[in-house]
Amino acid sequence: MKRRKVCVVITARPSYARIKTALLAIKGHSSLKLQLVLAGSALLDRYGNASKIIENDGFKVNRKVFNILEGDTSISMAKSTGLAIIELSSVFESLKPDVVITIADRFETIATSIAASYQNIPLAHIQGGEVTGNIDEKVRHANTKLADIHLVATESARQRVIKLGEREETVFKTGCPSMDIAREVFDNSNFKFDPILKYGGVGREIDLTDGYLVVLQHPVTTEFEKSKEQILITLQAIMELDIPTFWFWPNVDAGSDGTSKGIRYMRENNDLSKIHFFKNLEPEDFLRLLKKSNCLIGNSSAGIRECAFLGVPVVNIGSRQNERERAINVISVAHDKNEIKKAILKQLSNGHYESNLLYGDGYAGQKIANTLATCELNHNKTITY
Amino acid sequence: MKRRKVCVVITARPSYARIKTALLAIKGHSSLKLQLVLAGSALLDRYGNASKIIENDGFKVNRKVFNILEGDTSISMAKSTGLAIIELSSVFESLKPDVVITIADRFETIATSIAASYQNIPLAHIQGGEVTGNIDEKVRHANTKLADIHLVATESARQRVIKLGEREETVFKTGCPSMDIAREVFDNSNFKFDPILKYGGVGREIDLTDGYLVVLQHPVTTEFEKSKEQILITLQAIMELDIPTFWFWPNVDAGSDGTSKGIRYMRENNDLSKIHFFKNLEPEDFLRLLKKSNCLIGNSSAGIRECAFLGVPVVNIGSRQNERERAINVISVAHDKNEIKKAILKQLSNGHYESNLLYGDGYAGQKIANTLATCELNHNKTITY
Amino acid sequence: MKRRKVCVVITARPSYARIKTALLAIKGHSSLKLQLVLAGSALLDRYGNASKIIENDGFKVNRKVFNILEGDTSISMAKSTGLAIIELSSVFESLKPDVVITIADRFETIATSIAASYQNIPLAHIQGGEVTGNIDEKVRHANTKLADIHLVATESARQRVIKLGEREETVFKTGCPSMDIAREVFDNSNFKFDPILKYGGVGREIDLTDGYLVVLQHPVTTEFEKSKEQILITLQAIMELDIPTFWFWPNVDAGSDGTSKGIRYMRENNDLSKIHFFKNLEPEDFLRLLKKSNCLIGNSSAGIRECAFLGVPVVNIGSRQNERERAINVISVAHDKNEIKKAILKQLSNGHYESNLLYGDGYAGQKIANTLATCELNHNKTITY
Amino acid sequence: MKRRKVCVVITARPSYARIKTALLAIKGHSSLKLQLVLAGSALLDRYGNASKIIENDGFKVNRKVFNILEGDTSISMAKSTGLAIIELSSVFESLKPDVVITIADRFETIATSIAASYQNIPLAHIQGGEVTGNIDEKVRHANTKLADIHLVATESARQRVIKLGEREETVFKTGCPSMDIAREVFDNSNFKFDPILKYGGVGREIDLTDGYLVVLQHPVTTEFEKSKEQILITLQAIMELDIPTFWFWPNVDAGSDGTSKGIRYMRENNDLSKIHFFKNLEPEDFLRLLKKSNCLIGNSSAGIRECAFLGVPVVNIGSRQNERERAINVISVAHDKNEIKKAILKQLSNGHYESNLLYGDGYAGQKIANTLATCELNHNKTITY
Repeated sequence: MKRRKVCVVITARPSYARIKTALLAIKGHSSLKLQLVLAGSALLDRYGNASKIIENDGFKVNRKVFNILEGDTSISMAKSTGLAIIELSSVFESLKPDVVITIADRFETIATSIAASYQNIPLAHIQGGEVTGNIDEKVRHANTKLADIHLVATESARQRVIKLGEREETVFKTGCPSMDIAREVFDNSNFKFDPILKYGGVGREIDLTDGYLVVLQHPVTTEFEKSKEQILITLQAIMELDIPTFWFWPNVDAGSDGTSKGIRYMRENNDLSKIHFFKNLEPEDFLRLLKKSNCLIGNSSAGIRECAFLGVPVVNIGSRQNERERAINVISVAHDKNEIKKAILKQLSNGHYESNLLYGDGYAGQKIANTLATCELNHNKTITY
Repeated sequence: MKRRKVCVVITARPSYARIKTALLAIKGHSSLKLQLVLAGSALLDRYGNASKIIENDGFKVNRKVFNILEGDTSISMAKSTGLAIIELSSVFESLKPDVVITIADRFETIATSIAASYQNIPLAHIQGGEVTGNIDEKVRHANTKLADIHLVATESARQRVIKLGEREETVFKTGCPSMDIAREVFDNSNFKFDPILKYGGVGREIDLTDGYLVVLQHPVTTEFEKSKEQILITLQAIMELDIPTFWFWPNVDAGSDGTSKGIRYMRENNDLSKIHFFKNLEPEDFLRLLKKSNCLIGNSSAGIRECAFLGVPVVNIGSRQNERERAINVISVAHDKNEIKKAILKQLSNGHYESNLLYGDGYAGQKIANTLATCELNHNKTITY
Repeated sequence: MKRRKVCVVITARPSYARIKTALLAIKGHSSLKLQLVLAGSALLDRYGNASKIIENDGFKVNRKVFNILEGDTSISMAKSTGLAIIELSSVFESLKPDVVITIADRFETIATSIAASYQNIPLAHIQGGEVTGNIDEKVRHANTKLADIHLVATESARQRVIKLGEREETVFKTGCPSMDIAREVFDNSNFKFDPILKYGGVGREIDLTDGYLVVLQHPVTTEFEKSKEQILITLQAIMELDIPTFWFWPNVDAGSDGTSKGIRYMRENNDLSKIHFFKNLEPEDFLRLLKKSNCLIGNSSAGIRECAFLGVPVVNIGSRQNERERAINVISVAHDKNEIKKAILKQLSNGHYESNLLYGDGYAGQKIANTLATCELNHNKTITY
Repeated sequence: MKRRKVCVVITARPSYARIKTALLAIKGHSSLKLQLVLAGSALLDRYGNASKIIENDGFKVNRKVFNILEGDTSISMAKSTGLAIIELSSVFESLKPDVVITIADRFETIATSIAASYQNIPLAHIQGGEVTGNIDEKVRHANTKLADIHLVATESARQRVIKLGEREETVFKTGCPSMDIAREVFDNSNFKFDPILKYGGVGREIDLTDGYLVVLQHPVTTEFEKSKEQILITLQAIMELDIPTFWFWPNVDAGSDGTSKGIRYMRENNDLSKIHFFKNLEPEDFLRLLKKSNCLIGNSSAGIRECAFLGVPVVNIGSRQNERERAINVISVAHDKNEIKKAILKQLSNGHYESNLLYGDGYAGQKIANTLATCELNHNKTITY
């Protein structure tokens, strides 16, 4: 039997973490053939060049699409998406996949959806049905309406995709592949790993013997003029707590220039001797770092998702994860220095939580591969009501 | 008070008919300022250059976006959409509208939605919530998920948009503006008008004293290799009936080259003395022609919509309008010569039907303008469930 | 030794004829590896889809770039070029050629030049140094200034490229590969071939026993509103002569829609019983048809180039080939019906001419391959004065 | 008489300095109407957002074109150019200029040339005929071959453009408009101005009483992997000299990320207490700073051009200005720390030079406006030999 060609388009570092175990399972499946396309910030040094990590992990990259426009404005998001459609159309025409996979809700993921669906290639969407607010949510549900197959992470996501008018038999609850990595990290908690030794980063060596915090705060695209101010509030809270901290650079989005400027500004005007900055870690290493941390602070979805599985306490700041389903490990606060400090202290006194399987049981990658190998591939659909 | 700038993007001749009375009402509204952008096949001679008609109607065109790629393939649909996003992003950045309007479900309408929503400009979608099947429907519902304001035509469309998770107070049932033109034509049935004198077209003069048929058959994009074959079946049916017929060239889409070739092929190999071909008529004139016709044949949405209001009998062929809500004036048939002939004969013996207000009462344009002048303009939303 | 990867970009049917024997020689050369990219009208059915011919000739196509915008306007030429740069950049990044070849002077050839030179890939230009007037000439000389290696057809072209400031050792006079095909056709004049049987075309069967004419008239882009009028003048002249004629559809360019319309208009209003229309022939077949014809009429460069080698009489109309070097087989006339008729009659009474080697001795393909295998590959240069 | 619409496209901060007085003269000319388009890095904060300066100077910006792709690679240069062609084509179609001006030799300037010339709009090129080596020179001469009118800075540039086959009557020696600003600065040497007070910049306050150095070193695009290393050599030389220095961030180009990284790296690992970093100054202020400086170091063309007029000593490093005509104020050295130090010390002991008019007498802007108001506007040309 001819193997189904599954073309996965990865457009950012965080998306790789959310698909990696599925890539491995697709690559290893006897009925499937993996085609891998990298685009967007996944190719850019400034955002941690996921492409090197992916190639180091043994994946062959079939095509690279450079499509991100410069500029700290929302117009670059729109234009980058247009450019991606143009080039991904050619990529799909050349690779002739049997099914294309688009991941989650980043602005440029709709480019994958349009390039595939307009060329009548069946489209599978990973992580549909979740609720986040903002432009991300518009994109996510638009992806759902363009997609033919839905590989969702949670039960409530499955219900929501069905409510959106998709046929129940095209919606598969697989869990999120990022939980697979979380499970492996969880199962190997004794693994030794020194992040500064391996990745360098920026800032002085810090003493981790009494535990540490992790911060990852993305700009919120619909409020991007405020992103600098918001990042400074968080920095101030962390500085006042005076606890060793690993701080991660945000990924590409309108506003990210503002965030970087904020960090640079702080570093030039303050003594940040207890903060160490990283641009990027391999997904496993990031989770290892989280697993051993005392608390994750910011607005990363990792706080809502992986940390639920890992049982790591989270202080979630601001509106970015507003609507996302969460377990009890998360305390949500506004962009307010005192609220942030208070919540961190509360989490520190609570310590780690029980593992929660809300976003998957840790075997999503294999389930996704099996679904893609056996499901009906069709590009015609109509709403169910 | 500052007038709201309403930017309408028209990408095809049929879309102009569906928005014209709203344009007039927006232009005439004391709280609104109209910005008009033409793109896609609306600018192309080959598809009837709607731009000339629109300028003749007294509208000022603020920007023109040439974005359609050549080629009888679905890849050109995808790339044309990408190109439209890139250029419309610049257009919106330059015109700085308070609200952008995207119309219905053509492939390139999602470009308007993306360019506006990614730049945080409130997006209003006309004709959401309808059901058609095919890529059109994917695009239509994706537009709904990207849009903030929904100006729908029918009650069932309103229900469907709400089911898609949109807040009820953002969904406005205005009816379809094309019904406004239908109403005017209906109210002035005595208007004298000779289409061949006014538009020329291709083919010999035909005798209309005993009535005539109108044919408009678009290629179906997800089956575009079959479009030539399908058009030849319809042509054969019409030829065998030997009744005077006006035949309209289809609009741009993957497959339209095939249709044109089919028509040319037929004209070279057959005696089509009773068929007169047109590329395009002004919307009013097209409806005048329909109003006086004995039957509309093909797969045009005008058969489902305007003809309901006008009471004109319709033979709807194939899957293109499969799921669209319809009144009793429509008989649906497969791409089968004998079925088509039989249905036409049945409609001829039935004669015209009662006017039906399913798609609007003929005052949609004014309702749309009033809604845009008074509704809350917001670009942040989240699903209701 | 590692074989040099030679990437050839073909953007139109006529360009294939001008490079075919070089492709064969590159493919067969032990030190070279051929990479073939098709773009522009070479992929479009409407312009004779050269891609099918090329694949039938046994070449593997590495990438296809759909980039031509619709529309009978010069804006589509500019935008199609921009789109080609974007996509060819990705193609070169993916194929990693050691040298890229751009051919002649069509508007989109500068896209190949920019995509290669901006990525520091050595660029070879075929057919630099010729003089034609119009935008073509601007493009041709701009290509020369972007190119590192110059493979020219004639001695005067060689002199001109050197005068343009290129180093003499980078300019190679190889002759034009289209002469190689002309030589093969010339050497096999007895080959039997029935064009209507093989290609069909449009129009009635015509009697060729007393010889025939061939017409190929392209629109002139800087005067594209006149293209319809000019084509009608030529048609009128041919009709009045009442001699069997093969008429070829022009290639894509601003104005080509006008030409097609003109032909259609004539066919509907005149008795063209002695004219047979073709859209495209394989290069060899086109030359076979020319070789046996009594005269070529129009503004094709084949009249100036291949017909010199073949000794076929030519009536060259208008400004398109104004400045191009020519042999004695050509009579040049204005767009004037009587001048055209008079010149054709003069050529008919003269009959065929001696073969002239102005544009090459028929072994250009091999010379080009040998040059590419041995020349220095460098992307840095400076003007010589 | 109808005023000629002159559309100037500015794509980078340095280009503004080279055209500003011409803009003023065009704006003030009774026979001309200025249309201003900003694109490329002229719109980006990261490169000093020239757009704000331009608007502060009282110019109305007709259109903005965001076209720069992210990434420290040459592919982004190529794609950004393609994107600019697409959008500038629409801009010219909308603004309908009588003549378009493209400036100098940056990679994206050819986009202006193609968008204008392909649409048959007469194209004027500023600063043709100069020699620089590298991709810049390829672009510059390709611009010349696409342009119809040539507004050159020096006599040798005039000779070179004519040798390139341009008709003598289309080549106008006006001098470079940047000399006009240099002349004004020179004539007002007593003007008081504190750059740190006005612009801030990065780094501590420095003591300027004994004079200071200025450094501006751009990455060299065809060697962009070396750009970090080269910048570190220069930094090392400057640090060892231990003289107060103003250091300017380079403009956008493949490699500029590397340069910024280098600067950041140095700042984190060294005591740069005598270096103050700026991203951008208004053109006049930059010249004021130069005028009072003891020496300019780096590879900026300002060293070759404005500093000739101002008599400022220059140490020119590396290949970037290799071929450019220069006066006696320039000492050229390799990327070698000791050579650089030695040359700076020699310049410091020499002091300022006599003013030299090689690049213009300081009245270029008015000459350019007068030429555009009176020259023949034509888009058809042919090579002169």
